Amino acid sequence: MPAPARLTAALLLALLPAMAAVGDAAAQAKKPYRSGQQILDASPASDWRTLDPARTLYLELASGRVVIELAPAFAPEHVANITTLAHEHFWDGTSIYRSQDNFVVQFGDVDGEDPAKAKSLGSAKTHLPAEFHRSAKGLDFQPLPDRDGWARQVGFVDGFPAARDGADGKAWLAHCYGTLGAGRNNADDSSIGAELYVVIGQSPRQLDDNITVVGRVVKGMELLSTIQRGPEPMGFYTDPAQRTPIKSIRLASEVPAAERTPLELLRTDSQTFRDVVEAKRNRVDDFYKRPAGHIDLCNVPLPVRTPGGKK
Amino acid sequence: MPAPARLTAALLLALLPAMAAVGDAAAQAKKPYRSGQQILDASPASDWRTLDPARTLYLELASGRVVIELAPAFAPEHVANITTLAHEHFWDGTSIYRSQDNFVVQFGDVDGEDPAKAKSLGSAKTHLPAEFHRSAKGLDFQPLPDRDGWARQVGFVDGFPAARDGADGKAWLAHCYGTLGAGRNNADDSSIGAELYVVIGQSPRQLDDNITVVGRVVKGMELLSTIQRGPEPMGFYTDPAQRTPIKSIRLASEVPAAERTPLELLRTDSQTFRDVVEAKRNRVDDFYKRPAGHIDLCNVPLPVRTPGGKK
Repeated sequence: MPAPARLTAALLLALLPAMAAVGDAAAQAKKPYRSGQQILDASPASDWRTLDPARTLYLELASGRVVIELAPAFAPEHVANITTLAHEHFWDGTSIYRSQDNFVVQFGDVDGEDPAKAKSLGSAKTHLPAEFHRSAKGLDFQPLPDRDGWARQVGFVDGFPAARDGADGKAWLAHCYGTLGAGRNNADDSSIGAELYVVIGQSPRQLDDNITVVGRVVKGMELLSTIQRGPEPMGFYTDPAQRTPIKSIRLASEVPAAERTPLELLRTDSQTFRDVVEAKRNRVDDFYKRPAGHIDLCNVPLPVRTPGGKK
Repeated sequence: MPAPARLTAALLLALLPAMAAVGDAAAQAKKPYRSGQQILDASPASDWRTLDPARTLYLELASGRVVIELAPAFAPEHVANITTLAHEHFWDGTSIYRSQDNFVVQFGDVDGEDPAKAKSLGSAKTHLPAEFHRSAKGLDFQPLPDRDGWARQVGFVDGFPAARDGADGKAWLAHCYGTLGAGRNNADDSSIGAELYVVIGQSPRQLDDNITVVGRVVKGMELLSTIQRGPEPMGFYTDPAQRTPIKSIRLASEVPAAERTPLELLRTDSQTFRDVVEAKRNRVDDFYKRPAGHIDLCNVPLPVRTPGGKK
């Protein structure tokens, strides 16, 4: 039976039966190429995890909800303080008061530095140690084999892009698109988690290990990335009316279960994740003519899906 | 006379007289640190260039003007065709019909693939060769010393972020924030410059040498980066009303001189540029506690200013 003339080489390759035994690297290399989406579609349920509601924040804007996963393994003191601030409704009625193109949006109490006008921090701590990095020991660090200019080694820890200078050295979370950090002044221990920023542009890795990273946005980035920019060079609005009001920031665990956003995140310690990364590192499809043979930490997709639905 | 107590170490350092002779590397290393802005403020006028109006595009939106510099040295056929299309007002009344978060906005004739509805291409060519790369020979390539995972060497050519695999090998323009590329279908020679995209997120370097890059946005990125996103996964709007109308795209040379946007761009072959890059690679100020000692190609600032004014 003749094959239809329009069958492309890539499609023919995809039709070949999988001959490789799992775990056999040589055979793996001969497996037909699958796109990232095809790999995800075939993934077992056990490769996905849900968010812990006690370390999930909902940032509520008029435009919708931004879902944030906190990183207590890297910034326990900041996450504890943020948890207190959310529990006591500190951010309700504050604003996104900075939007700098290709850099960050920043939010919190715009009067936070003025003792006469600052909102009460309630029972939150007013001083915390810097948590720029931690010991790499004890972390389940999944390294990327790809070279990185900013750190000796990069990879993932519990779904977060991370770096380390050795298995027994320092480890820190990396500044990628969607990273949530704690704004500070010049003193390294001047952040308390009340003023936060989210990366909305090219990964500013120069901030790595220079500031306390407290989590990352897992859903709703488009609500932050499209906020009208403030004036150059820093993106702080001159007209307060341009700020984006924050309705509330809540812990998911303090929101009724029926109002929570159900999400599943691909486990970065899964074979599915490694396969997706390799499918992006070396794309073999009708569009790409030259596989890159490389992927940067902040280009790695971190898949999120709604259970029972599409991404 | 005692110094005020609040004088910081960095400020004291900045007050030290410059003792180094220009060109003396050892002495250079002892020069007081200057921020990128301080270096720019002290730069000679000769380190700046203006745009060639004949290879500058003005993309006019209701929100304002986006200024684009074309790259005929890398994509001569595409730039010639784009010049024809602009001259004949091809894009007037078309739209930005795609906005994918952390990736690209795309614009042109949304019906371009439908022969029954497509706008006339006028006297523009309907087929062009792929211009993914060119010979590196003859290019004034200013290499960055920093390691890059995607290419053997990266640097700048006439203000554009670029890469090459050797001085006598291939060279191509890199996909950074603001890069303008020519959309294509699966065939490598299926772009003609009528459908264009601009990078609005983390640099998608996997596209390098896989698509024809035709220029970059030098002013007005914030008008593109804040456009409401279309639905996942690709960002094409389902409702045509969500598209952003394009009033016109014109060559600056075909706009009355009084209506042009005066801009100066820092020459990437200047000492000022090298100094700015080094100031960003190794930041020494009150904020940064750990200089990165590295910079990625797409993190390098490409300063643009308005003559006689501020950036």
